[in-house]
This record gives sequence, C-alpha cells and structure tokens, in this order.
Amino acid sequence: MRQIKLGIVGYGNLGKGVQAAIKQNEDLELVGVFTRRPADSLDVNDETVDVVNVNDAEDYVDKIDVMLLCGGSATDLPVQGPKFAKLFNTVDSYDTHAEIPKYYAEINRIAEANDNTSAISIGWDPGLFSLNRMIAGAVLPEGRGYTFWGHGVSQGHSDAVRRIDGVKDAVQYTVPLEEAIDKVRTGENPELETSEKHLRDCYVVAEEGADKDKIAEEIKTMPNYFADYETKVTFISQDKLDEEHSDMPHGGFVIRSGETGEEKENTNIIEFSLKLDSNPEFTASVLVAYARAVFRLNNEGKTGAVTIFDVAPGYLSPESPAELREKLL
Amino acid sequence: MRQIKLGIVGYGNLGKGVQAAIKQNEDLELVGVFTRRPADSLDVNDETVDVVNVNDAEDYVDKIDVMLLCGGSATDLPVQGPKFAKLFNTVDSYDTHAEIPKYYAEINRIAEANDNTSAISIGWDPGLFSLNRMIAGAVLPEGRGYTFWGHGVSQGHSDAVRRIDGVKDAVQYTVPLEEAIDKVRTGENPELETSEKHLRDCYVVAEEGADKDKIAEEIKTMPNYFADYETKVTFISQDKLDEEHSDMPHGGFVIRSGETGEEKENTNIIEFSLKLDSNPEFTASVLVAYARAVFRLNNEGKTGAVTIFDVAPGYLSPESPAELREKLL
Repeated sequence: MRQIKLGIVGYGNLGKGVQAAIKQNEDLELVGVFTRRPADSLDVNDETVDVVNVNDAEDYVDKIDVMLLCGGSATDLPVQGPKFAKLFNTVDSYDTHAEIPKYYAEINRIAEANDNTSAISIGWDPGLFSLNRMIAGAVLPEGRGYTFWGHGVSQGHSDAVRRIDGVKDAVQYTVPLEEAIDKVRTGENPELETSEKHLRDCYVVAEEGADKDKIAEEIKTMPNYFADYETKVTFISQDKLDEEHSDMPHGGFVIRSGETGEEKENTNIIEFSLKLDSNPEFTASVLVAYARAVFRLNNEGKTGAVTIFDVAPGYLSPESPAELREKLL
Repeated sequence: MRQIKLGIVGYGNLGKGVQAAIKQNEDLELVGVFTRRPADSLDVNDETVDVVNVNDAEDYVDKIDVMLLCGGSATDLPVQGPKFAKLFNTVDSYDTHAEIPKYYAEINRIAEANDNTSAISIGWDPGLFSLNRMIAGAVLPEGRGYTFWGHGVSQGHSDAVRRIDGVKDAVQYTVPLEEAIDKVRTGENPELETSEKHLRDCYVVAEEGADKDKIAEEIKTMPNYFADYETKVTFISQDKLDEEHSDMPHGGFVIRSGETGEEKENTNIIEFSLKLDSNPEFTASVLVAYARAVFRLNNEGKTGAVTIFDVAPGYLSPESPAELREKLL
C-alpha cells in the first residue's frame, strides 16, 4: 500500500502530537516538519524526517500529499492557512468561532483555485463536538442541546490570570458543574448560561511580596472571564504548579435532550463525551484521521474547503468500505 | 421551500414513529402509508395522508421522493428492500448483522440500476453506534472499543422466554453492568465478553398452575440467550406487566479508550450514549433525518446503496452548510 505523505507546520505541542499520531497509522508517513526557526536549530528526534524552513515549503509540493497546520488560531493560521492552501491539501484546527465563515470563504477560494482540498476547524471543539451537536439536532429537532467543557485547562483564561500585576504564573481549569449535567441528563431541558454550567478553578503563583487578596479579588471580578462564574483561587508555589499542573487534560460533554412521538411525551437523550489526558495529542489524532480523508477527497476531485460536516465518516478509516460494513456496522 | 415527499411502508411501532417524526420537520411531508392490509382497514389518523396497499406502490413513483421501509429484518426487509429500491429512494433499518454485506450488495445493484439511492441499516445499532465505533477507532487506533446495550427491552430475548411451556407473557430487559462500564471508563482496557457486560432481567407472567421454579430454571439455563449471563427472573401478574412493562425504553454506550503520545502514556476516552424512552420513536427519528440525506444525495447523482459511513453528516440537517458553519461549528 502506498503511504499517504504528510507534513507538519509548527512544532509545538500540537505538532508533536501529530508526529506521534502518524506513527500509530501504517498507511501514513511523516515526510517533513516545517518551522519558522532556522531548520538546523530544531531536533524532531527522527532522522527520516526532513526539517525545513517554512519559506522553503514550495520545494515539497510534489513530495507531500497533505500538510497539517499546527499553529494557533490567533496569529498563525490566518497567515498559514491561505499560504499553504495555495500549495497543498491542508488540515487545520482553526477555532476562532466568530471568524470561521470568513476564514472558510478565503480558504475555499484559494484551495479551489489551486485544486487543493482543505479541512478547516478540525479537532474536538470545533470538530467532534460540532459533529455531535449537528447530528443530535437533526435527529431530535424538538429538543435542546448543551455543551459542557472540562475538566480541563483553558489557555485563554490562564493567560488572563497571568496578565494580572503580581502574578508570576497561573493555570486555570474549567470545571463542568455535575449538578447542571445531571439536570440536563434527566431531560428537564433547563435554561443554563455558560456561567451556570461551569466553575473556574485557578492555581496561581504570586510574585514575592505581592498582595494575594488583591490578586484574588482582581481575578474574581474580571469581566467576561470570571465575574459571572463561581471562581476558586488557590495560591501555590512555582514548584508545585510545575509538578502538579503542567499536564494538559481536557474534555467535555455534548448532550441533547429531545421529545418524540405523537404526544411528544417520550424523552430521548443523546450524549457524547470526551475525557482526555492530553488535549493536544487527542486534537492531533483527530487532525491525522482527517488528513487521510482530505487525501481521498482530493483524489476524487472534491476540492475547496470542507468542515467536519462535509466529510463522509468512512473516509477517516484506513479500512475499506466493505471492511467497515462487515466489521463495524 | 419545496417539501421532501415521503412514504412509509409498514405501519407498526416504527412506522408510527416515522409519521410522528416527519411532523417535527417543516421541510418534510408524509404523502402515503403503504400497508399489506386492505387499504380501507387502516386508519392513520391523518386525512391528508393516502393509505395504499403495497401492491399499488408503483402508482406513487412520481409522487414520493423517499420511501421509509419500516418492516422487520427477519422477513419483511429482505423482500421489501429490493422491491422498493427498484422504484424509489429508500431508507431502512436492516439489522441482521451477519447478512449486511449480502443485503448491501443486492440493494446496491438494484438501486444503482434504477438511479435510486438507498440508505441501509440506519438507526442506532446499526446506525449511530456504528458511526461512533468507526470514528473513535479511526481517531484512536491504539485502543479498544466497547459497546454496552440497555437498559432496554430485547425483543428476541422476550420472545425466547414467551416460548417456554407455562409462560403466558414476558418482557426481558438487557441491563448494562455499571461495574463493567466504570472499568472501561478508567481506561483499564479490560477483556470483557458480552456476558460480562450485561445482566438479563426477566418479568414473567406464568400460566395458572404452572411450575414457576421450573420456568425460572429453564430460562436461566437456556443456551446462548441466558446460560452465560447473570439472569434475574421475577414473576408478576399480567395486569402489572401491561401496566409497568409495556414501554419500549432502550439505549446503551459506545466507549473507546486509546493511548496517545510518543510514550503512549496518555489515555483518552471517547464515549457516546443513548437513553431512550422510546426505542422505535428514536429509531424513526434517525431514519427520517437520513431520508433527507438520501433525497439530497440522489439529487446530486449519488446512486446505489449507502450506509451511515458514506453520508456526509451535513446532509442530515435542514440547515444550509453556511448556517451550520456559523451556528454549530
């Protein structure tokens, strides 16, 4: 079997996760890692993989089937998405929800004009969570859908705490409230604001001599980020933060409760949940499965941008449609 | 908006569920119910819907976009599937797992030859459960997948109990064992036989004067159905059975636990679950969403048989791709 040749753009946590995920799939091969750093300054722990400066990516147009863009949504992907969609099939995890329609339009135009296929906003949210929100909504139109996030580290909220005067380092966990989840699971269809579904749990390292009460107050009253939430603040040492809070767990729940039948008296609950030891490694595993799909779609002549809603699930699996029908249906 | 015109073949619990589900979707319209009974003997409680004998279905070729086949897999669908795939786009819930490849091949040949599109084996298992087994396996290739069924009525097991001498009526619930589910959720990846994952809970009405101990013994030692399982037998009156055990709840869990990362030390759990007050009404709701998809696929020229693996999820929703990207991604 010919292997599908892949490239990684950006070698942070997500890029490293992609490298590891590719090794779990016999039909996939990592050809190169593309970096903004000088190529010879980066060690990817694999002699069979080329390390290349992003500016030389064009040399790999005939050597790579799909490029996995592993940068962030704030500043990396708005530049890298269009740039690489011109040259390669791509997969990315663009997650700035409000900007997705604009990003889609741009990538679609470029990918289509260059006969490439780009899967955007792949991962788990946006990604598998979106997929489950959509399917559950189509199956149970008279109902209500809920998304809970966590238990997991929110990078945005951790950054917000770190920006406070007197804070040396911090990690913020988003924690879904069990009582709220239980209420949803009973089919009560409660009205719940995001703040009624989650607790915010902060572990903070204060600068020497800083006023901890003032820091805690500033966190708890921060508009948008914390003010509306039940927020816990715990001060710990840098050593303890490094030791106990450097993992990147995450997860969450997508639940839809809907009524069926002539009398609409029967309640049905659809629930999808993730419990992840490693958010970036899991996201990487989803990207890699969609890289396989993108390769196949492009081979069939389907070009332009696609989202998780547009990809028939069978394309994700290395097994043939006949095998899938026999073993998994 | 032009409504998609639907027909129902077979007016049992599933057919009635489809009728109710169609009413929840503004873009769908029920045109006719097709029955093997004399057409004038069936009341579908809706004057706008034609009641037609199945032998006159051909008269509706130009009036119906998709036919939903609501018969059983043992004897109805092997006949109705091929017959209707020749005339109409179809959706069915064919669930005889071992025969699916053969059924697919036959329906595919007939549907393709007649420019029709047939979605087979749609529902929740086969159906949404298959979809989740497949996606989770593609995302976490180094892991293990589990399916638990219940709490719910198993028709096959209830029938098996009813066939025992001295049994007047019976209902059997398949109950997933919480300890087994919890073990899976921790990521231990235990080896579990179906019998180690489920308990069988029987409610039995004995004939007047029947030997209850003998009946219980016969149930608990019945090969394949009960002998390998922890089985509970409770004798109750017919009134109580009718009153407390005539609903058709069901559900279950599809869980995959897989390792990621260079060291493969991070465990990630993907879980999909259903808790259904009404198994037939929920199955009907899935069939109806796939009827919409089949209509669209056929309009785009995709003919032949498809399974849940072959349908891009966006086709299930009444919303446009742009709306889905904006609201649900």
